[in-house]
Amino acid sequence: MKIAVAQLNFHIGNFEGNTKKMLRAVATAKKQGADIVCFSELATCGYPPRDFLEFDDFIRKAEHSVETLAKAAKGIAIVVGSPSRNPVVEGKDLYNSVNFLVNGKVKHVQHKTLLPTYDIFDEYRYFEPASEFNIVKYKGKKIALTVCEDIWNIGNENPMYDICPMDLLMKHEPDFMINVSASPFSYTHAEARIHVLKANVERYKMPIFYINHAGAQTELIFDGGSFVMSPNGNVFEEMVHFKEVIKTFNLTEVKKGKTSKLQPKGKMKRIHDALVLGVKDYFGKLGFKKAILGLSGGIDSALTLVLAVKALGKDNVRAVLMPSQYSSDHSIKDAVDLAENLGIQYDIVPIKNIYKTYMKELKPLFGDLPFNITEENIQARGRGMILMAMSNKFGHIVLNTSNKSEAAVGYGTLYGDMCGGLSVIGDLYKTEVFELCRWINRRKEIIPNNTITKPPSAELRPNQKDSDSLPDYDILDEILFQYIEKTQGPNEIIAMGFDPKLVKRVLRLVNINEFKRYQTAPVLRVSSKAFGMGRRMPIVGKYLS
Amino acid sequence: MKIAVAQLNFHIGNFEGNTKKMLRAVATAKKQGADIVCFSELATCGYPPRDFLEFDDFIRKAEHSVETLAKAAKGIAIVVGSPSRNPVVEGKDLYNSVNFLVNGKVKHVQHKTLLPTYDIFDEYRYFEPASEFNIVKYKGKKIALTVCEDIWNIGNENPMYDICPMDLLMKHEPDFMINVSASPFSYTHAEARIHVLKANVERYKMPIFYINHAGAQTELIFDGGSFVMSPNGNVFEEMVHFKEVIKTFNLTEVKKGKTSKLQPKGKMKRIHDALVLGVKDYFGKLGFKKAILGLSGGIDSALTLVLAVKALGKDNVRAVLMPSQYSSDHSIKDAVDLAENLGIQYDIVPIKNIYKTYMKELKPLFGDLPFNITEENIQARGRGMILMAMSNKFGHIVLNTSNKSEAAVGYGTLYGDMCGGLSVIGDLYKTEVFELCRWINRRKEIIPNNTITKPPSAELRPNQKDSDSLPDYDILDEILFQYIEKTQGPNEIIAMGFDPKLVKRVLRLVNINEFKRYQTAPVLRVSSKAFGMGRRMPIVGKYLS
Repeated sequence: MKIAVAQLNFHIGNFEGNTKKMLRAVATAKKQGADIVCFSELATCGYPPRDFLEFDDFIRKAEHSVETLAKAAKGIAIVVGSPSRNPVVEGKDLYNSVNFLVNGKVKHVQHKTLLPTYDIFDEYRYFEPASEFNIVKYKGKKIALTVCEDIWNIGNENPMYDICPMDLLMKHEPDFMINVSASPFSYTHAEARIHVLKANVERYKMPIFYINHAGAQTELIFDGGSFVMSPNGNVFEEMVHFKEVIKTFNLTEVKKGKTSKLQPKGKMKRIHDALVLGVKDYFGKLGFKKAILGLSGGIDSALTLVLAVKALGKDNVRAVLMPSQYSSDHSIKDAVDLAENLGIQYDIVPIKNIYKTYMKELKPLFGDLPFNITEENIQARGRGMILMAMSNKFGHIVLNTSNKSEAAVGYGTLYGDMCGGLSVIGDLYKTEVFELCRWINRRKEIIPNNTITKPPSAELRPNQKDSDSLPDYDILDEILFQYIEKTQGPNEIIAMGFDPKLVKRVLRLVNINEFKRYQTAPVLRVSSKAFGMGRRMPIVGKYLS
Repeated sequence: MKIAVAQLNFHIGNFEGNTKKMLRAVATAKKQGADIVCFSELATCGYPPRDFLEFDDFIRKAEHSVETLAKAAKGIAIVVGSPSRNPVVEGKDLYNSVNFLVNGKVKHVQHKTLLPTYDIFDEYRYFEPASEFNIVKYKGKKIALTVCEDIWNIGNENPMYDICPMDLLMKHEPDFMINVSASPFSYTHAEARIHVLKANVERYKMPIFYINHAGAQTELIFDGGSFVMSPNGNVFEEMVHFKEVIKTFNLTEVKKGKTSKLQPKGKMKRIHDALVLGVKDYFGKLGFKKAILGLSGGIDSALTLVLAVKALGKDNVRAVLMPSQYSSDHSIKDAVDLAENLGIQYDIVPIKNIYKTYMKELKPLFGDLPFNITEENIQARGRGMILMAMSNKFGHIVLNTSNKSEAAVGYGTLYGDMCGGLSVIGDLYKTEVFELCRWINRRKEIIPNNTITKPPSAELRPNQKDSDSLPDYDILDEILFQYIEKTQGPNEIIAMGFDPKLVKRVLRLVNINEFKRYQTAPVLRVSSKAFGMGRRMPIVGKYLS
């Protein structure tokens, strides 16, 4: 028996596009001689469909896609994830299901049991868990179908759940497993995934075919990394990351377990590829081509620009240099050098006159009050307005250039440097921004070395440095990591040896700046805990603040 | 036996403040001769605590609050909601519990069973449902304790659930029921609540004491409306809305069921009071006093200003009039009239020079391209920047003045008129804005009649009217209501008799403007479906768009 893994990039709600793409993949798999072709979780509607699931019309369209695919299931079986209706009145209206289509019909449906409802996941908002567990028989084989999380409580060792769907399916003595997933990227997730697949294969002594999405949906980047594992626990093949692939495997070969093809796992390479895909799909799926951003000569905008050029092509990215009276000469030079290295269009629009006009118009109200954060913000917002005006006039999307460290502590201006349609590097701490820039420059100086080596500065007042108001990024980022990714409280972090005053100050800054993050662009998620849908905090809370 | 209902305004994460407030209420209830004093759901930590619940430190602090309250439970019993730990490894780490404290100890704990995970609720993200159901005996009475949603599946008639906790508690033959809740306001919710309480009382033939929060937490406004109902299904007393109250009831009197005190239920009055509380608590809980907003002479900013003055006092609200070359004379006059009616400070800052400076600086890039949305947005953003500068200089929070109709279809400028820390009327359709203004003017012309009667206009180009680009608000709002509140799809709405082209255009506008709403201020929720945490939509979706 031959099984095709179809790792594809779907578009949420684009039923027509998704179905066409799957029909083409069915044809390809047939050509490859496949007996079964497998698509990922909720492939018909894309993942995550979020509250679109509450629209009956949306579910009807998903059902229609399954019908269309069933008609194409001739001479080949199709495994595809799609929402389906719960016929029982009690409980949630829907199931998150995997369908087995063959001979023009739906032969078998298995619902998802373990519904992730944490971090970025909201599945119990929509779905009822499965209560029945059956396998499907096809061409003399018995196949256990599961959906994503259902293989993540192997042997009941996951503390979140008290049921293990594969254990229940084992009663029917399946020959192999197919798992359809929608498992988003984080830079540690590929290892976790291999670990879980191995645990399943070792427990159940049979091959597994694991099919993930490859594509980005706003914040979430699905890295693919679909997998075939042999019954002896050896990797048979890990599919390419961040790309579509349709590949057919011979079950007999997989059982022998001789091949072993893994993808490279360097943290910076993976983050780089993830962010490039994130930008590309954000634009492509919204129907935009062109990006614009403010290029300051600093490291954050430099990195954002490099990633944008990689994603969209140099002819589709434009930079604006917007020096103020506090910009240093090297800033302009560094920015120009980078723009020229990349061969992109750039313009220089000084903000001095805009700044002066604001100050003049506000003079009757401000009187002789001293220069403070207000004047800094006016500069940042003046720049934001220029970028937005360019975006409106020429149809660009503005890319936000904030990093995770500054978003965390509120070191940024709302509607100023925090503006933009997409935050490209907002899930990278400043220390990771440096690391990724060095990785990009590993063979050739693309980002001017001076951009990387000079002390970070917002350049919004004379001789300003980030270090005037923030601790060293090495220390700041470690405290932030413990608080944000590891959900450690003040006592635990202080116990690690950090200065108690500093810890309290940093945690307070994170909490009192929730109102700023609430109003900023979606952040491409690459860590296990990004700002955005996976971290939900009260604004008016008074906790550690 | 005497039971005190303590309907209080808690502050998320402010354990010290919340505990002190409860200790004062315990003293008050004792003076009133109460045998039991009842607080609401998650009263120790405030509701909704959201992801703060993932911090062990946060849970320890809640536990400490319960211990402190237990020590005060002498000569009186205390009923209080608080998160508690699930000692079993499997399942979620926490329960959402109600504690019965007496004689310095926790005498009984009942966990919540029905965990709302829809709309604004995320409870299954954090909590494990109860599996044990017991009553507590106190002073010869048997008391059934439940938490909020647990009384909302009476007789298993709620299609979302398949268990009815009160049915299970009935085995123990309780004498009366206490339900601790955190049930946010919407303008239809008070009726739903009475209906549910009545259904419980009629089924179980015993009195119920229902204790809700009274206070706003960013988007969510808890209206109080705590309730005592007699076993015959008669209202004994509905507590005041939107205010704190501590009131003691004699169980014998409640059983007789003679009193019947209900609160007024006019839609506009309730919305008015809810929004005033929403503004007041947003400022108070963040530690701010002063608001600023742009006053255009139009109806949205007029209404926002009236509500802000009511919430914060006229000395704490400042308005800025920012006319452009397209502003009409009546706009300034209407704005000035309103500011003077209210007795607030206002300033006039024309944006002509700011606009001209932008256009001059952008001229080298824009060339001779014609006036379009870009120039409109520059005006709106110029105004936003002035407000933000004032806010930075003087410590105001900027109030956003967008309404739900324009937020829905994207008729607003990101970082311009969509700026601000809090959206006050963002859950009111334009037709409701008119209705509320007329209600405010019911006795006296506070908002100039001209503001209410003139055709709505953004005044960003010559002779512009909203009706140039939008359908009549009567029709638009009805389509939006069906799509947003009622989750009806295009076919269902067209079947109601609306023009198919218009329906498709409106739904498309709603969906393609998700990116704008993503970046705007939290919206005070007064309807059953507001933009914000209760409506979660993909940005890159391609559905109806």
